[in-house]
Amino acid sequence: MTGQLIDFRSDTVTRPDAIMRAAMAEAEVDDNVIGTDPTIAELERRAAQTLGMPAALWTPSGTMANLIALSVHLQRGDRFLATRGAHVLVNELGSAAWLAGGMPNILEHDAGPGRCLPETLEAAIGNPGPYFTLRTTLLCLENTHNAAGGAVTPPDEHAQLLSVAKQAGLTVHLDGARIWHAAVALQVPPAALTVGVDSVSACFSKGLGAPVGSVVAGSVEFVEQARRMRQMLGGGVRQGGVLAAACLVALDRVDELAETHEFAKRLAGGLSEHGWDVRTPDTNIVLAGVPDVPTALNWLGSLGIQALPMAGKVRFVTHRDLSSADIDEALRRIKTGA
Amino acid sequence: MTGQLIDFRSDTVTRPDAIMRAAMAEAEVDDNVIGTDPTIAELERRAAQTLGMPAALWTPSGTMANLIALSVHLQRGDRFLATRGAHVLVNELGSAAWLAGGMPNILEHDAGPGRCLPETLEAAIGNPGPYFTLRTTLLCLENTHNAAGGAVTPPDEHAQLLSVAKQAGLTVHLDGARIWHAAVALQVPPAALTVGVDSVSACFSKGLGAPVGSVVAGSVEFVEQARRMRQMLGGGVRQGGVLAAACLVALDRVDELAETHEFAKRLAGGLSEHGWDVRTPDTNIVLAGVPDVPTALNWLGSLGIQALPMAGKVRFVTHRDLSSADIDEALRRIKTGA
Amino acid sequence: MTGQLIDFRSDTVTRPDAIMRAAMAEAEVDDNVIGTDPTIAELERRAAQTLGMPAALWTPSGTMANLIALSVHLQRGDRFLATRGAHVLVNELGSAAWLAGGMPNILEHDAGPGRCLPETLEAAIGNPGPYFTLRTTLLCLENTHNAAGGAVTPPDEHAQLLSVAKQAGLTVHLDGARIWHAAVALQVPPAALTVGVDSVSACFSKGLGAPVGSVVAGSVEFVEQARRMRQMLGGGVRQGGVLAAACLVALDRVDELAETHEFAKRLAGGLSEHGWDVRTPDTNIVLAGVPDVPTALNWLGSLGIQALPMAGKVRFVTHRDLSSADIDEALRRIKTGA
Amino acid sequence: MTGQLIDFRSDTVTRPDAIMRAAMAEAEVDDNVIGTDPTIAELERRAAQTLGMPAALWTPSGTMANLIALSVHLQRGDRFLATRGAHVLVNELGSAAWLAGGMPNILEHDAGPGRCLPETLEAAIGNPGPYFTLRTTLLCLENTHNAAGGAVTPPDEHAQLLSVAKQAGLTVHLDGARIWHAAVALQVPPAALTVGVDSVSACFSKGLGAPVGSVVAGSVEFVEQARRMRQMLGGGVRQGGVLAAACLVALDRVDELAETHEFAKRLAGGLSEHGWDVRTPDTNIVLAGVPDVPTALNWLGSLGIQALPMAGKVRFVTHRDLSSADIDEALRRIKTGA
Repeated sequence: MTGQLIDFRSDTVTRPDAIMRAAMAEAEVDDNVIGTDPTIAELERRAAQTLGMPAALWTPSGTMANLIALSVHLQRGDRFLATRGAHVLVNELGSAAWLAGGMPNILEHDAGPGRCLPETLEAAIGNPGPYFTLRTTLLCLENTHNAAGGAVTPPDEHAQLLSVAKQAGLTVHLDGARIWHAAVALQVPPAALTVGVDSVSACFSKGLGAPVGSVVAGSVEFVEQARRMRQMLGGGVRQGGVLAAACLVALDRVDELAETHEFAKRLAGGLSEHGWDVRTPDTNIVLAGVPDVPTALNWLGSLGIQALPMAGKVRFVTHRDLSSADIDEALRRIKTGA
Repeated sequence: MTGQLIDFRSDTVTRPDAIMRAAMAEAEVDDNVIGTDPTIAELERRAAQTLGMPAALWTPSGTMANLIALSVHLQRGDRFLATRGAHVLVNELGSAAWLAGGMPNILEHDAGPGRCLPETLEAAIGNPGPYFTLRTTLLCLENTHNAAGGAVTPPDEHAQLLSVAKQAGLTVHLDGARIWHAAVALQVPPAALTVGVDSVSACFSKGLGAPVGSVVAGSVEFVEQARRMRQMLGGGVRQGGVLAAACLVALDRVDELAETHEFAKRLAGGLSEHGWDVRTPDTNIVLAGVPDVPTALNWLGSLGIQALPMAGKVRFVTHRDLSSADIDEALRRIKTGA
Repeated sequence: MTGQLIDFRSDTVTRPDAIMRAAMAEAEVDDNVIGTDPTIAELERRAAQTLGMPAALWTPSGTMANLIALSVHLQRGDRFLATRGAHVLVNELGSAAWLAGGMPNILEHDAGPGRCLPETLEAAIGNPGPYFTLRTTLLCLENTHNAAGGAVTPPDEHAQLLSVAKQAGLTVHLDGARIWHAAVALQVPPAALTVGVDSVSACFSKGLGAPVGSVVAGSVEFVEQARRMRQMLGGGVRQGGVLAAACLVALDRVDELAETHEFAKRLAGGLSEHGWDVRTPDTNIVLAGVPDVPTALNWLGSLGIQALPMAGKVRFVTHRDLSSADIDEALRRIKTGA
Repeated sequence: MTGQLIDFRSDTVTRPDAIMRAAMAEAEVDDNVIGTDPTIAELERRAAQTLGMPAALWTPSGTMANLIALSVHLQRGDRFLATRGAHVLVNELGSAAWLAGGMPNILEHDAGPGRCLPETLEAAIGNPGPYFTLRTTLLCLENTHNAAGGAVTPPDEHAQLLSVAKQAGLTVHLDGARIWHAAVALQVPPAALTVGVDSVSACFSKGLGAPVGSVVAGSVEFVEQARRMRQMLGGGVRQGGVLAAACLVALDRVDELAETHEFAKRLAGGLSEHGWDVRTPDTNIVLAGVPDVPTALNWLGSLGIQALPMAGKVRFVTHRDLSSADIDEALRRIKTGA
């Protein structure tokens, strides 16, 4: 190994800094199961507002935020639609199926990375059948789309998909774990990316440095049901304000994500020069097509560069705990093989 | 409407004839929950033998047979693979997901109708990931494949897929609701189509005229677990021998399916001449691509011809309660529009 | 062993007789999944009427009938109430919990065998708690009550329990697998025992000789949901009219159950004289308290008398396939030990 | 209201103090999903050791800790036993049933508050039945027992119950959310109370002041399965070390619980003098039988005394955020009604 580890495994590795830790240490707290913790309440208010939704609920993870939403939306015998490689399909251990109760149908990315065409969606919904058939009741979108390399869906495409879904009477959930990234990349407010959805999840520990915490937002009635489901899953915590305080700091730092997008573009350029198959990233995730993924990961590891496999490629994620110099150094190691 | 109804909706519409009803009336029976009904036992023995499996279990439906198999094979956090449009994906109200607990991944039909290439299967299985990832543990095959128009998978392709699956440690379930059709079309014994599988379901009311009944077959231990799961689902019945007697008659009639395949080929030829997009059928299912499915179904209905929509096409199923003359008459009506 | 087996294991062992078999052989049938089988439709109409409910649905077993009802009524986070030893608690492999999704609370039999006091019910319901608590939403009654020895709940007690349940906003399901027995014993029509319930199941193979079949009845909307759930569980069958025909014959034979109740009283008297602890039975089930259940069952077996253990006692069930002479003979063997 | 609120609602209301917050602010952290957070690892090591188990896993709540254990232990068709009012029966929204998949049977407290007799347990287990019957596979104990008023089970009774359970082949889970209280009251190490169990949960936010966090402990293999289940439920968090640091401080404070037990005894004495029906508490929970619970709670509220209803009584919980003076003041208000 040739120096300090450079960690591109995920933007979930970011650590709380001194400011965030101070906020946690000073957070006002209360029992958030039997009453309401004031700092969690403040976070939920601010997150709902930022996401353009009536209400929001803190959860210990983005996985739980999605699981709660799907559990509230789905009934047995329901089918939901999601794009190939969606987090709810491949990264949540099947809980959308076995726990939330939905049978998925997969939409291909035929409108671009992470996105399907409105007509593809329409065809997948189909017509309602007789009593003995699945009913397609839910569309799950993901923005940015992780497995598609942090790809963004712009507001106009979002609107077209929503229009098709709503005309067919579908509920829509948006997995917005990295919605902050999409908003920054598109230079729109996050609420511009949630127009029409029934629920949206968003995460404070993906690139923003908060140690623990996500939210799921929707109508007031949705959040009431979600709160109950959170408790069932064991996601109700007591003095969670210590975590919400960090999430509030994270929320103030959304604009700083732009720098990590610049890191990703620079990294992608270098990897492309190295001969790997790389699309210019929309946000902070770089997917590199390589001849053999395990070999490439091993070689990177030998250079002190950490990355993970995803969707048959090598995934590099840039984040706030990396510096501009780290990007340069990673590219230098890759170029020189040392 | 221009005469008697001609019913191509499904081969499940076939009615028991006098011989079958006589067998039911004379069947020896006992309480099959607390003991064993002798006629059910006889059916289970013969079905196991015919399918080339150590043991079999009677179930009231093919849907329950598949559901039981998937419930025995799958654990939460497991992923299973099935071809697009598979019965377990689209025709069983999502019970593979919400009840059996599996998250599906969809294999495209890139080796022909209803079949995927071995390399597609291999890629879909992927490598086992860390603890926080789905584990692909089960492959579901379907032969013949309903949504692919009764398409058969020949023994050599079956063997290749089994080889890939077994090398990766997967369990394999074969939805053989219409395995009798595949065997007849391929002129092989049914057991030639189950080589290596861990479980197989087969149905006696699809084209064979039995009013009620399927089996699911596998190892003796599998059938023990399946018996318990059948009871949980409410599929344990008392003097079921009256139904098993009809299934035994059905089993003796497998060879007669050949005629219904000839009907289907003739029907397909006529529909093709009519200008609809039709592949020559392998067995007894004809899928016709038409400009607009609801319009076509209405028009057929006005001619006294019953069919159902499937996979974006019009599905015609031929069966033992149709005669050669019915095929001629249906084609005449379609040709003349009257 | 001292002669022919005398089978008191269950009233589910009754076999269809010649009349019933003839009805099956002549039954008009159709595909009951994609359309409606006329004989099933006729049974559902007559069963609904007899049970005093707007609609009914045929199911392959009483277990499935209960499971469907509970699945329709219960949501995750719901608690249901049932008397200790209820069929839904102990005889359905936990599907009320793991599949229908309810957490049970057990009511003791403090008003008599199989029945609780209205105030016990009221206390068990309790007050609705905050969001993080179980909600008691369903009461399950059972009439006659199997584990309590075929005990009947008379209409006035039924009405009192219904009144408490309805005042608290509970849904009520009645497991009426043996409701025919209760009606005959009380000399009231079955509909007098379903007043106010939201759903009721009833069985045609418990004492009435039908080989396979139950119904679950309720509102039209309930039955619509139940039909969908039946399909999910694999309980949708094709030409089920062959079975419904037998159920229709069974329905005409309800009054004949009175004789089996007389058998049970006679048997109970003899067992009591033998020194076993026996309550005079309400219907056709005799529970005998014995020093050691396995020993007693073995001894009975050596006498050619078949019975099963239940609720810590030996259960004898009388039924239409036993004759008056069989009761005499059984008591003779028990008296003489040979 | 007559002064500052005195909060007896729960020991979960305790807030992290300055020392705990400092520990959180300085905690070393890492991504605990894709790798291991060092502070979580340290907590898991220490908790396992203290509980006398090979391994442990951090969870965001005690509810999730129990849910994970039951999910690992139970299969569909399994029955588990728990004492009436057990947390897994009444305080976890039925997830033991609908998610973990178990059907409960309820053990009465016939050996004392929160405890059943070994012979009661033996009778409840019964004999293994045929394939169509529930299998009793798990015993859930709770020490201290919340709904029984923080009642302790001493090591010898624990051993007797374990002996019965193990002889019958049962798995045993101990809900030890307040096991620290039992250990302090009995003056034994916590490990003396886990002898023979397969899994135990323990909580750091009940009386010990940690804002968020529990553990579930068992064999190394159990913890591997538990880690996967935690991820499925959405309980996998990133830099959870900030929380584990507080849990480690809590673990050092177990001995301080003794003072809160003394508070409870004093409170119980006063309430008894007031005429309420109160048993001398084993630990920090006082259950007061009153003529009418809502009336009593309202009256207490008017005095600035907060409590909650439980098991048909008023529950007072003493904890580290109360002082000796608070107890005196609460009793003064109750005595004077002002």
